[in-house]
Amino acid sequence: MLNKNPSRVPLMRFVLGAVSVAALLAGAPARAAEPVQPIELPKAVNPAQAELGKKLWFDPRLSRSGFISCNSCHNLSMGGSDNLKTSIGHNWQKGPINSPTVLNSSLNMAQFWDGRAEDLREQAGGPIANPGEMAFTHELAVDMLRSIPQYVAEFKQVFGSDKLSIAEVTTAIAAFEETLITPNARFDQWLKGDMKAINDQELRGYQLFKSAGCVACHNGPNLGGTSFQKMGLIEPYQTDNPAEGRYAVTKNDAERFNFKVPTLRNVELTYPYFHDGAADTLARAVDTMGRIQLGKTFSTQENADIVAFLKTLTGEQPRVVLPILPPSSDTTQRPRPFD
Amino acid sequence: MLNKNPSRVPLMRFVLGAVSVAALLAGAPARAAEPVQPIELPKAVNPAQAELGKKLWFDPRLSRSGFISCNSCHNLSMGGSDNLKTSIGHNWQKGPINSPTVLNSSLNMAQFWDGRAEDLREQAGGPIANPGEMAFTHELAVDMLRSIPQYVAEFKQVFGSDKLSIAEVTTAIAAFEETLITPNARFDQWLKGDMKAINDQELRGYQLFKSAGCVACHNGPNLGGTSFQKMGLIEPYQTDNPAEGRYAVTKNDAERFNFKVPTLRNVELTYPYFHDGAADTLARAVDTMGRIQLGKTFSTQENADIVAFLKTLTGEQPRVVLPILPPSSDTTQRPRPFD
Repeated sequence: MLNKNPSRVPLMRFVLGAVSVAALLAGAPARAAEPVQPIELPKAVNPAQAELGKKLWFDPRLSRSGFISCNSCHNLSMGGSDNLKTSIGHNWQKGPINSPTVLNSSLNMAQFWDGRAEDLREQAGGPIANPGEMAFTHELAVDMLRSIPQYVAEFKQVFGSDKLSIAEVTTAIAAFEETLITPNARFDQWLKGDMKAINDQELRGYQLFKSAGCVACHNGPNLGGTSFQKMGLIEPYQTDNPAEGRYAVTKNDAERFNFKVPTLRNVELTYPYFHDGAADTLARAVDTMGRIQLGKTFSTQENADIVAFLKTLTGEQPRVVLPILPPSSDTTQRPRPFD
Repeated sequence: MLNKNPSRVPLMRFVLGAVSVAALLAGAPARAAEPVQPIELPKAVNPAQAELGKKLWFDPRLSRSGFISCNSCHNLSMGGSDNLKTSIGHNWQKGPINSPTVLNSSLNMAQFWDGRAEDLREQAGGPIANPGEMAFTHELAVDMLRSIPQYVAEFKQVFGSDKLSIAEVTTAIAAFEETLITPNARFDQWLKGDMKAINDQELRGYQLFKSAGCVACHNGPNLGGTSFQKMGLIEPYQTDNPAEGRYAVTKNDAERFNFKVPTLRNVELTYPYFHDGAADTLARAVDTMGRIQLGKTFSTQENADIVAFLKTLTGEQPRVVLPILPPSSDTTQRPRPFD
């Protein structure tokens, strides 16, 4: 399912493929034929790497100001997002795009809205060096870490080597991110056979979600993250956000305004919606998606049913004990947020 | 010891008073006559209030931008401070003063560097409404909370009433802050009779800390927080920071540049030092304090001994499980960080 070029695959073939592969992989659970699969906790994360990665995740010293950490825009108290239309970067710069959730992001075929990073490791280096986000450089970030004896010792212990470069930094951050899985949503319980886990309205919403065609793109265990799709397939999407989507990566005109389909897991927590953050509420997001992607106008009741279903996708949030960061040493370069 | 006007008490009488009261209160521990007492975990915090307060502590929706929370400037991963010279406020405004640690702050006789808040409850309302910090209003903060059913229910459960005002908000935040005590530093172990808990250099440093006179102001369980003192007692302090200290509150000329003596607990983690954040390292802070407060120039060895002692004051940091914040409802006013 991690097809790197799904936009080249005819839509219906892709959907049918996802369904049948899912049925095959899932063995024989209660609902093996559903186009959505339960999410499971990751099995193979290196715990020492993830623990180091957690420190880095929360460490604002990876930014030029000493004020912005990964968690600033992917806040684990708020569904792994910042709940802002677009994010706030260094020197209060207005970010270009809505911050996607980090939760379950390891299940996406690629990272960023335009998929320009192949995986979490590649993604993790981006914001650190982006002048509009953390505004640092990889070199200065690594210098900072190397100046702190506790970090040096922990990198050595975790990676079994004295090498401390941006590769180890992003590997550790990615390992932490791989732990950020949200299992056991009520919908997962239903998928696994607990008929009482969702109510009649939520079930109606799911049935409509399938029959109306939402599931064509929002499928798989992450209900998304498996394809790029055009924003405004049936009707043009009106926005003043200049993002061009997949085109920015491929320079292929056919992929203009193609964005990675976002996950719907925990969507109750990750407002506002769309790459431009224009939809404040789930009701509005469902309405817009129906019209511009499917050519459908949902009735008030239908909209409410789908929203009710979407709220069953809120899983158990990661239980994160706040790390205690190793203090800077006398030789650590001090942040200069106002220079 | 919570004398509200300690600056009116002659210095030596105050110090002797602190020692004898401490000896009295402490029963008969191993070192009852020391001017510093071990720090103990609080006994009487209301756990439900503190749990609600923890959510509020981490909730950036208490700021106008939706980006700044209490934890932004009093980061519990970094000794309860932001490790910046002065803090970053709404719209990247440069703060006027160094962010004091929240750790053990319930032990201070008053809050803020100039003591303008009597207690943690009074303090907690300050940054929310300060145009240079969170830049919100109490009314809008309360409106936000009232628009979120989970918050409304939790306030009702915790306070046993439908009343949800800034008073309940600050009461809950203060209850959480009261849990942020850092017991069992190596120095506390030594105070309680474990002779091996600190080494010879650290003990020399403590002895010099006492004999040189540091302890005249940095005493009690929090090694500070018990008096206002003039910054630059013997020699004027050179700074371009315009803060006037206690004078700003009392308009009494004699209290110009009088600041609350900061705690030295966890001082290894709470750099940079002084109200203007001008001292990047403990070595520099000790040197400056010796000269301008005591008229003493410590030798390199003496300075290193005192710094070694100060590092024994790092206690067990609070183990904080990151709260999951209740999501905004459809009627919650959205933050407008760039308006």
